[in-house]
Amino acid sequence: MDGIIAVHCGAGYHSPRYYREYKRICNRACRKGMEILQQGGSALDAVREAVMVLENDPLTNAGYGSNLTTEGLVETDASIMSGKDLTFGGCGAIKRVKNPVALAYDLCVKQLETLPLGLVPPTLLVGPGGLQHAKSAGLKIVSHKKLISQKSLKQYDKYREMLKTHNSYENKLLDTVGAVCVDDTGHVAAACSSGGILLKKPGRVGQAALYGSGTWADSFDKTTESSVAVCTTGCGEHLVQTQLAKEIAEDLKYATCPTIGLHKTMTDKFLKSRYLKTVKQKMGGALVLHVTLNGDVSVLWTHSTKTMALGYMKATDKKPKSIISKLPVEASVGETVTVSGSHFFVNRQDSH
Amino acid sequence: MDGIIAVHCGAGYHSPRYYREYKRICNRACRKGMEILQQGGSALDAVREAVMVLENDPLTNAGYGSNLTTEGLVETDASIMSGKDLTFGGCGAIKRVKNPVALAYDLCVKQLETLPLGLVPPTLLVGPGGLQHAKSAGLKIVSHKKLISQKSLKQYDKYREMLKTHNSYENKLLDTVGAVCVDDTGHVAAACSSGGILLKKPGRVGQAALYGSGTWADSFDKTTESSVAVCTTGCGEHLVQTQLAKEIAEDLKYATCPTIGLHKTMTDKFLKSRYLKTVKQKMGGALVLHVTLNGDVSVLWTHSTKTMALGYMKATDKKPKSIISKLPVEASVGETVTVSGSHFFVNRQDSH
Repeated sequence: MDGIIAVHCGAGYHSPRYYREYKRICNRACRKGMEILQQGGSALDAVREAVMVLENDPLTNAGYGSNLTTEGLVETDASIMSGKDLTFGGCGAIKRVKNPVALAYDLCVKQLETLPLGLVPPTLLVGPGGLQHAKSAGLKIVSHKKLISQKSLKQYDKYREMLKTHNSYENKLLDTVGAVCVDDTGHVAAACSSGGILLKKPGRVGQAALYGSGTWADSFDKTTESSVAVCTTGCGEHLVQTQLAKEIAEDLKYATCPTIGLHKTMTDKFLKSRYLKTVKQKMGGALVLHVTLNGDVSVLWTHSTKTMALGYMKATDKKPKSIISKLPVEASVGETVTVSGSHFFVNRQDSH
Repeated sequence: MDGIIAVHCGAGYHSPRYYREYKRICNRACRKGMEILQQGGSALDAVREAVMVLENDPLTNAGYGSNLTTEGLVETDASIMSGKDLTFGGCGAIKRVKNPVALAYDLCVKQLETLPLGLVPPTLLVGPGGLQHAKSAGLKIVSHKKLISQKSLKQYDKYREMLKTHNSYENKLLDTVGAVCVDDTGHVAAACSSGGILLKKPGRVGQAALYGSGTWADSFDKTTESSVAVCTTGCGEHLVQTQLAKEIAEDLKYATCPTIGLHKTMTDKFLKSRYLKTVKQKMGGALVLHVTLNGDVSVLWTHSTKTMALGYMKATDKKPKSIISKLPVEASVGETVTVSGSHFFVNRQDSH
């Protein structure tokens, strides 16, 4: 099976003046992920590297250039899941780690280690303990300042001023980034990374760090005929309460049509969720990779927000395809979802 | 409907020399919860207060007397869920807060607040940010030392020594505490609190803090004929990976027989879980309250560990009933579950 990678820069509101730039970032992340696959890396390696490209760009709300907390610092969440072993690693409210997804990856790959005294490798590390682990794992640590971009500082000042005047202007900056991938062994992986909502409380952890919420990956096994990888984006608390990544993946494993199945899950389990009954506007989105045993592949994206920036690439493609997906003009933001996708057959034939 | 409270001191291994003491603690927590209900408090208030009693006792692994991390400090997790509004609050890796469940409660009751700029009240706060929030909410903050008991310090020294010699003796100290309650309006709530596994990494967050894993509460609504509240205990990572509290509650809402239903969920979704396929011994347990619209009540407990200490009390009871539940002698720890319970009819009649 040929490898495929797909990435996104978040569901939210992308200003048209940056459309070209967002597509360029997605292209670069796709290329990096594909390079890893072609060097023999796994889907898990590829999503880590692709998300690191997204984290390093100041335009995304992840890693460098993340939204600032009320105390004016960057605190990040990230997670990764391997469909092969169903292992997961997550980190939350992490300061000074240049690439939070690399910390999540380190926790994920250590899940299968056996520790003495019946100790269990942690799946989720937060705060100063997470930073300490990142140091001991040899990951790159930087000063607080090195994670703050000019743009994020400007927005921090602007929104803090608005908060003082109790202006009720909507906070549109919900740009968790993520990647999903299938490698040539047919195994899938998913990763995501986020700076969280602008002016969040220090210590707040959102869906990007948490099991079942931000990422899900589940490869073929005896009981299922498809592999699914999912990463979500949007309002962290609402994605946690609906455990959206896991719900999408579980429904899709048994759906006859992935596109209809995804629309149904987003409608029934997000827009109409009992857990969000008091929420007026439900802001969320997901990037999904669905692969059947006989080689049918769907790269799908869905969002209830104005826009979503994403890209994808197959091993046989000369270049990635990146787009800005838009909610139809007549649709109400936070009350309707759009589902789109690209379908192809991989392996011997390729009928993109 | 008459109120009912049930509490537990964890599934794990309780030394027979402390049996009487564990039962005494459960009794005290039940009495406190019942007192709150009789003063007109809600199920949510009652589980908070009951869990605070458990946290304040040095014998439990929660609050004061919690297991110590590798750096010799107490770091706690707690969460609470209201079945009425399906709201949740959780905190993880929290230092110096005397009653972590009170912090979780504070986050939970603030879920329905509307914030400016489209900001969303956080459901999960961790680390120093959590401590900061606790301070601003007026909760009791103490020094690190005030949370360390003589017993926990002794065990820390003993296990650290064992770790040095790579002795593979099992870490049996998995005592998350918790409470479930139904109040006279028929609404349910659940809470739990934990110091985590002994010698855990600083920053490690377990099931006790996390949505879907440590607690679940879901009251009657138009679509269901029963209320369910659940709190789990055992190996945190495995309870997160199986999202056991939510799974138990969702299955039980539609089960014909709660006892058989609970046994089936524990077998299919914990012992045989795909997500724990590499885990030999699955250590877990749960305390469950199931209430039907016509007044049938089940207090159920289940565990795959050697023992579980628990208690329960109805409004019409003169005193709580507390027991040490044991896995049958012939059963293998971590490979079998026991399910037991007490059933009664509340309201006009009471056929305990």
